[in-house]
Amino acid sequence: MKQTFNEMLPEIVEAITAKYKESDLLLGKTEKQLPIRSEIIDILNDFKDLLFPGYFNNDHIDSNNAAFYTGQKLSNLHYKMRKQISIALAYNKDSSITAASPDIQDEAERICCVFFQTIPTIQDYLLLDVKAGYDGDPAADSMEQIIYSYPGFYAIFVYRLAHELYKLKVPFIPRVMTEHAHSKTGIDINAGAEIGKHFFMDHGTGIVIGETTVIGEYVKLYQGVTLGALSTRGGQHLAGVKRHPTIEDRVTIYSNATILGGETVIGSDSVIGGGAFITSSIPKCTRVSVTPPELAIKNSSNTTTTDLKATSYVYEI
Amino acid sequence: MKQTFNEMLPEIVEAITAKYKESDLLLGKTEKQLPIRSEIIDILNDFKDLLFPGYFNNDHIDSNNAAFYTGQKLSNLHYKMRKQISIALAYNKDSSITAASPDIQDEAERICCVFFQTIPTIQDYLLLDVKAGYDGDPAADSMEQIIYSYPGFYAIFVYRLAHELYKLKVPFIPRVMTEHAHSKTGIDINAGAEIGKHFFMDHGTGIVIGETTVIGEYVKLYQGVTLGALSTRGGQHLAGVKRHPTIEDRVTIYSNATILGGETVIGSDSVIGGGAFITSSIPKCTRVSVTPPELAIKNSSNTTTTDLKATSYVYEI
Amino acid sequence: MKQTFNEMLPEIVEAITAKYKESDLLLGKTEKQLPIRSEIIDILNDFKDLLFPGYFNNDHIDSNNAAFYTGQKLSNLHYKMRKQISIALAYNKDSSITAASPDIQDEAERICCVFFQTIPTIQDYLLLDVKAGYDGDPAADSMEQIIYSYPGFYAIFVYRLAHELYKLKVPFIPRVMTEHAHSKTGIDINAGAEIGKHFFMDHGTGIVIGETTVIGEYVKLYQGVTLGALSTRGGQHLAGVKRHPTIEDRVTIYSNATILGGETVIGSDSVIGGGAFITSSIPKCTRVSVTPPELAIKNSSNTTTTDLKATSYVYEI
Repeated sequence: MKQTFNEMLPEIVEAITAKYKESDLLLGKTEKQLPIRSEIIDILNDFKDLLFPGYFNNDHIDSNNAAFYTGQKLSNLHYKMRKQISIALAYNKDSSITAASPDIQDEAERICCVFFQTIPTIQDYLLLDVKAGYDGDPAADSMEQIIYSYPGFYAIFVYRLAHELYKLKVPFIPRVMTEHAHSKTGIDINAGAEIGKHFFMDHGTGIVIGETTVIGEYVKLYQGVTLGALSTRGGQHLAGVKRHPTIEDRVTIYSNATILGGETVIGSDSVIGGGAFITSSIPKCTRVSVTPPELAIKNSSNTTTTDLKATSYVYEI
Repeated sequence: MKQTFNEMLPEIVEAITAKYKESDLLLGKTEKQLPIRSEIIDILNDFKDLLFPGYFNNDHIDSNNAAFYTGQKLSNLHYKMRKQISIALAYNKDSSITAASPDIQDEAERICCVFFQTIPTIQDYLLLDVKAGYDGDPAADSMEQIIYSYPGFYAIFVYRLAHELYKLKVPFIPRVMTEHAHSKTGIDINAGAEIGKHFFMDHGTGIVIGETTVIGEYVKLYQGVTLGALSTRGGQHLAGVKRHPTIEDRVTIYSNATILGGETVIGSDSVIGGGAFITSSIPKCTRVSVTPPELAIKNSSNTTTTDLKATSYVYEI
Repeated sequence: MKQTFNEMLPEIVEAITAKYKESDLLLGKTEKQLPIRSEIIDILNDFKDLLFPGYFNNDHIDSNNAAFYTGQKLSNLHYKMRKQISIALAYNKDSSITAASPDIQDEAERICCVFFQTIPTIQDYLLLDVKAGYDGDPAADSMEQIIYSYPGFYAIFVYRLAHELYKLKVPFIPRVMTEHAHSKTGIDINAGAEIGKHFFMDHGTGIVIGETTVIGEYVKLYQGVTLGALSTRGGQHLAGVKRHPTIEDRVTIYSNATILGGETVIGSDSVIGGGAFITSSIPKCTRVSVTPPELAIKNSSNTTTTDLKATSYVYEI
């Protein structure tokens, strides 16, 4: 205790570096690099500017300069993405292979070509997602407001990009993208999930959509909804197995409902009430609601306990 | 598939810019601008420095220089806010009207005058909110700690500013402010809600307070509480309708409780237990708790299933 | 209303500065300073680089330069931490004592010495936490991915550092650290909680772990789990009392379960199902699940209401 930090420094250095030697994991692969997170976040910001010009920066764009603006943004994005994708692809290869290896460069270029061709389709999807937000939320003043400030829209924007990279089997990057959106919005969508057109998440915080979830069109989710696995005690043995539910078209799921299991199907046009806990399939056109009698109500102005049942509520459908 | 990205670039540019032409929404109003989000976040940071000098920067302030410090901060804030408010007001007007138009400038100045006069009242409210945090949380070491590091306090600070701008019908900006707080804290308070004095949110993540919620004085909320709408299937037809509950004075609502509906009133001095799901009014001085018999309990050291009921718990009031 | 802002400025300045005089809290202690939040966040980033070199920056590190890298990072961290700890310690002392006072400097140095000696043990814990994440999540591609992008891992990393500072009674700083992690991940762990080895939180948003919680080894939590107090109506009188539950070894707690109370013990090897609400102790080797009959199910293709009970589900254990 009489020692100063500087006297202790050599032994602390020795103890910490000894741990580096004990476990390969602490240093990662020393001959490799991981994609740079700040670059991936820059890429997401560049995509916001490409897909919704004028919303998030002060660049002026109109029909006269749109092609120049778009071409320049795309060239930039291609350069940055190919670089990070090369790094990601090389990480899982033999130590002799680097991000600069010709095979890695070719594969990164091939992935970029496929990916960038999907952008116009992503534009179509996102336009319908904006409409879903505006139609679904009485508090929305305009469609511009959805693009400009809704966290649920930001999360689906990031997911739709990350999902294409997931399908192309790019390591690391899709997860960094969706975790960035998770950090900003509290919405955790695994890039592997499949989500149809015209999707809206209101408020959003706490939503979890697992890797093997399948969601149809015109679905609406509220804050705190979990679309999850029944049990993960199988750990890595469950990798690749469908563990998360299927939600069919035009389903609405209200706040904090939990739907679990890979064989659970919520039939089309159903409405799941807030706080419902569902682990088996629900037929189409069904409404499910929590019945309130679980509440014990005691009025302290009347000193005896009375078990008033709250009036049962059923969602209109 | 044999093409390089650069060979494909012209057709991708054409496809993306064709989408811009298909939908006005992608470019927004090209002759207008939207408020700059980074400026609005700067404004919030400046307000932290104005209302709680010395907590978030290293400026020294005492009774000798307080007037200079305050005057300079206010002048700066006025300049920045008038500019962003002008931009926001002009966006929704005819294309001939810009942020520099005299009518817009006058309206922005008028809004600023009313807004800045409310600051001393906001100071009073925030001081009571700090006290509410300290009195309500045994884990709080000091009142300074509430101001300095509590997310619930940050969210109510942002809300109290945004709410004044909402009342003055400023477009876009109140929402950007509350969504910034939402992103940082997981607490989603719509700027339209009305919240009384001495308000505290502990932990906070997942709290949702809808646009037409009315909250009295001395109310305390825990993480995951939803004060929401019963159904939003009416979409934009419900805009302006009271869709969210009324919480009267001195109510405490524990974690993950959900209270829905514009006609639902939680009477004064009531306590709502964690996980309760409420869709109809509760009289004053009432305690509501989830009764635990909904749990199926199976002890695997005893191979037969026994339906032990957990001891019922009632909150002291 | 005819006044301009500049005409009103003197009276607004006077009103705001009058509030500063009414309440000491608005200015804090004018002769003192608070730790600088951005410095504390820098310290956390430096610890990421120290504990997991190469994951979050582009520095190359291998067995040849590890001691230099580590020594330099530690020296830097020591310098920054001693400075912020001195500031924090001085804040709560008499006005004559400053961060530069010899007693404060000695105490800060003593705290740093004890703290930095715990780093190798923290490395051991974090390695087991990475393994817990990989073993527990079928969606995890690699252990590197856990370190590189899992929010639950980031939150436990920050907690394990903050907890050592909490034990050393450093004011302000542990809370700023855990609130930074809370803001980024939605996971709110009080630095006072005790958490054993091999701990994993999946998804994580909305998790709350209170100050006096005790968690054993090999525990797994999902999003939205609250380990909280039954009631906080005692306010500051409850400071220091055990208010939060004890979770024994090898317990899994699924999403949105709530466990409350300082005398509540979840026995070892138990599994708590999603959405369970528990306020009394559960014996070891027990599984607890929400039984679904609370749901009212109405199929609108069949116009009469039928109270179908969803098939009861029990988690495998």
